[in-house]
Amino acid sequence: MKNNIAAAKASLSHLDLEEKDTAIKAASRDFFWYSPVLKSRLDHVTADFVVRPRNEAEVIETLQNCYKHDVPVTTRGAGTGNYGQAMPLEGGCVMHLRHMAQIKEIHPGRVICEPGVLLKDLDAACRDHSAQEIRMFSSTWATATIGGFIAGGSGGVGSCTWGALRDLGNIIRLRVVTMEENPQILEFRGEELARVSHAYGTNGIITEIEMPLAPAYEWVEMFVATDDFMDAAGFAEELANEDGILIKLASVYEAPTAHRYFQRVQPYVDENTNLIGLMVAPHSMDGFHTFLERRPYAKLIYRNDDHNWARNPGPVFEYGWNHTTLRALKVDPKITYLQARYRYPDHLELIAQLRDRLYPEVLQHLEVMRENGKVMFAGLSLVQFTSEQRLDEIVKLHEDAGAMIFNPHRYTLEEGGRQTVDDRQLQFKRKADPKGLLNPGKMIAWDDPNWAYDRMYAHPKLQDAQ
Amino acid sequence: MKNNIAAAKASLSHLDLEEKDTAIKAASRDFFWYSPVLKSRLDHVTADFVVRPRNEAEVIETLQNCYKHDVPVTTRGAGTGNYGQAMPLEGGCVMHLRHMAQIKEIHPGRVICEPGVLLKDLDAACRDHSAQEIRMFSSTWATATIGGFIAGGSGGVGSCTWGALRDLGNIIRLRVVTMEENPQILEFRGEELARVSHAYGTNGIITEIEMPLAPAYEWVEMFVATDDFMDAAGFAEELANEDGILIKLASVYEAPTAHRYFQRVQPYVDENTNLIGLMVAPHSMDGFHTFLERRPYAKLIYRNDDHNWARNPGPVFEYGWNHTTLRALKVDPKITYLQARYRYPDHLELIAQLRDRLYPEVLQHLEVMRENGKVMFAGLSLVQFTSEQRLDEIVKLHEDAGAMIFNPHRYTLEEGGRQTVDDRQLQFKRKADPKGLLNPGKMIAWDDPNWAYDRMYAHPKLQDAQ
Repeated sequence: MKNNIAAAKASLSHLDLEEKDTAIKAASRDFFWYSPVLKSRLDHVTADFVVRPRNEAEVIETLQNCYKHDVPVTTRGAGTGNYGQAMPLEGGCVMHLRHMAQIKEIHPGRVICEPGVLLKDLDAACRDHSAQEIRMFSSTWATATIGGFIAGGSGGVGSCTWGALRDLGNIIRLRVVTMEENPQILEFRGEELARVSHAYGTNGIITEIEMPLAPAYEWVEMFVATDDFMDAAGFAEELANEDGILIKLASVYEAPTAHRYFQRVQPYVDENTNLIGLMVAPHSMDGFHTFLERRPYAKLIYRNDDHNWARNPGPVFEYGWNHTTLRALKVDPKITYLQARYRYPDHLELIAQLRDRLYPEVLQHLEVMRENGKVMFAGLSLVQFTSEQRLDEIVKLHEDAGAMIFNPHRYTLEEGGRQTVDDRQLQFKRKADPKGLLNPGKMIAWDDPNWAYDRMYAHPKLQDAQ
Repeated sequence: MKNNIAAAKASLSHLDLEEKDTAIKAASRDFFWYSPVLKSRLDHVTADFVVRPRNEAEVIETLQNCYKHDVPVTTRGAGTGNYGQAMPLEGGCVMHLRHMAQIKEIHPGRVICEPGVLLKDLDAACRDHSAQEIRMFSSTWATATIGGFIAGGSGGVGSCTWGALRDLGNIIRLRVVTMEENPQILEFRGEELARVSHAYGTNGIITEIEMPLAPAYEWVEMFVATDDFMDAAGFAEELANEDGILIKLASVYEAPTAHRYFQRVQPYVDENTNLIGLMVAPHSMDGFHTFLERRPYAKLIYRNDDHNWARNPGPVFEYGWNHTTLRALKVDPKITYLQARYRYPDHLELIAQLRDRLYPEVLQHLEVMRENGKVMFAGLSLVQFTSEQRLDEIVKLHEDAGAMIFNPHRYTLEEGGRQTVDDRQLQFKRKADPKGLLNPGKMIAWDDPNWAYDRMYAHPKLQDAQ
């Protein structure tokens, strides 16, 4: 199968087509560079051209023409994912959905929109309309799109209350276009959502989204400091277990993360300060203060609505989730990270154990999540990178101890996920992308059903470095 | 201390004072008659007069004059409590707060109101104002007041999401008037709230309330049927553990409760049907259907927005919480009940064990609650009443097995609660009610600090039966 880039481009020349090399290069990159492993593998990867459809009809036209000419299509939003989700491994077409940013309907408890709308803009519209907001968002809220979040994300700010994006009820409906000779338009609800949510656009393109909403409040953003790390972790967990106190974020940063990497926080903490980042509903602040006063070990050092800090630290959620790693990377380019899940009920024990073995090579960064109704932790640990081999050892050490690792140093769905085929995604890809042109190289099960997961998967058709 | 009823009445004659015997008798009764034990003890109890203050100044005037003349004051809302909370054991004055029903301010996430407003009216106002509603309410929503709920309730519809009323954050602020020579007006927040919430008005009168709000939705009300009781309990628990599905109610009724006692449900169930009553947010219905389809043992037999039942069964929450007992009592006057707490993580096991020992003398009625972040059950079991002795045996059997019983066949705070003094309430009563005139006989610790809880407490000054 030999693709015909020139013919595909020609057939799409009436669309918003990007042909400038620098712009194509820029649109071919996501935040894969968080990982030194992915950076060494994917830094050269680039699309042949970029198309920016204005509506669903143009998405269909793009898919149809690329299908005809056997051109791979990798779809992206803002490209803030850090598993290399949006890297066009075989080149071809990058389809950028930035123009598809319409918010179509807002109702009590739900919104209908196109995939390219920024999370920030979606929240602003829902707030203006009826004091609502999306239940959860990635820390890249200001720049990321809702479509990218659904296709490439798993949870974030708000998951301490609402659980993960894939949990029942956190996506209502997705409208999906297939890549066939005659693309189909499908509406997915319920069990069908799992086919395409967090599938990196490997088996269909999301053109419309219906999401649940929560009430929007003027969240009070705070930093709380403790001397002891496990006190900080306990504080975050116990707060999340207070059923009457509504929170949107509870992050825990092991010392010296705050002092070393959080520049505007640095004057107010020291090397030994463990930090907790919080978002609490304003009408829960009385309850929060009572909770705080019961824990004399914890000191409230900042709240966004009442502080005398010389420089405003900005949104507290921009210290949490993947922004923690981003801030650390800016100060120390040798930092990388892991994504872990420490499950109820052994989560605190497991974290203590891993800390004993790995501090200070690994610094704990925890995010409170709910899973199956229980408060537990996502871990986005900061890792001092020395070698790929050592990184693999650290991953294995976590797994052997009982933590689940979503390895962010891998670019396939399986390796970045649960290391098994998601059969619902694979089955749907067989129907929706018979030529295997959608975001190729990201689903091992498609390429090599017998892959043994004994080493890092290397996509055989990965673009050669120049 | 000899009280002077006549002098107190005379001093209050310019207020809305009730002196008609039948009206006084009516205003002296709450729902104590749910319990055959309380019925035998309290049926004759009646106040000497009833006063209905129009505002806080009149509350103060009432308390001041009754203090002067040593007249007990028992404060009530709608009188829908069923622990005898509002029964004036020593006679004297019943202070009825029905005129104090002003809703003062509504803000995002909170409302400020007077105690006498009906829960129903409070919700209507918050909904009209900004699509909000109170987080939780008793099943007597249509007739009960917010002040009565706070002074005499512990949770209800909404507690499956928000926990109990006493949990941090579920009451924001209470304004309280004391019964002293010169009554004080106090504002309580945080830890101070525990002094007067669920204190039956024994140590101060609540004159203003600030409560948190949740978004108001057009809740979809449903009945789901199962053949097996433990399937029904598991269904309710698992649904409540779905972090992305927003619910307001999950009740479980053991067969044959629905068939025997729920008249409008009866044609659609049989003797062996276990029933689940649900309120689910409309935007969570897709998630709910997915959840339901995964459980083929569960059949959706009714939803309020789409059914062909001959007679509308009314609000589903009016089958839950204390309304279950009420419905059973209407059919079978020999029915009474218990209030239990089955705590995480042994709740299901404990319920199964009690069922094995007590069916059919005791029929299980469970309400999903959250406690310390975990889904568990409140039990409001239906009991075939035979004798007080047998009822006490059943209570003991529950306690020995590990269930916590809030005995609804007792009229004191301690016996209906955790069977220990709430020292915060007692300490505050010493300051706020030095003569012990507020709702006398309801706080054992005040009357008899050395009470051993070895038998039912009998208030020595309980009014004699005529």
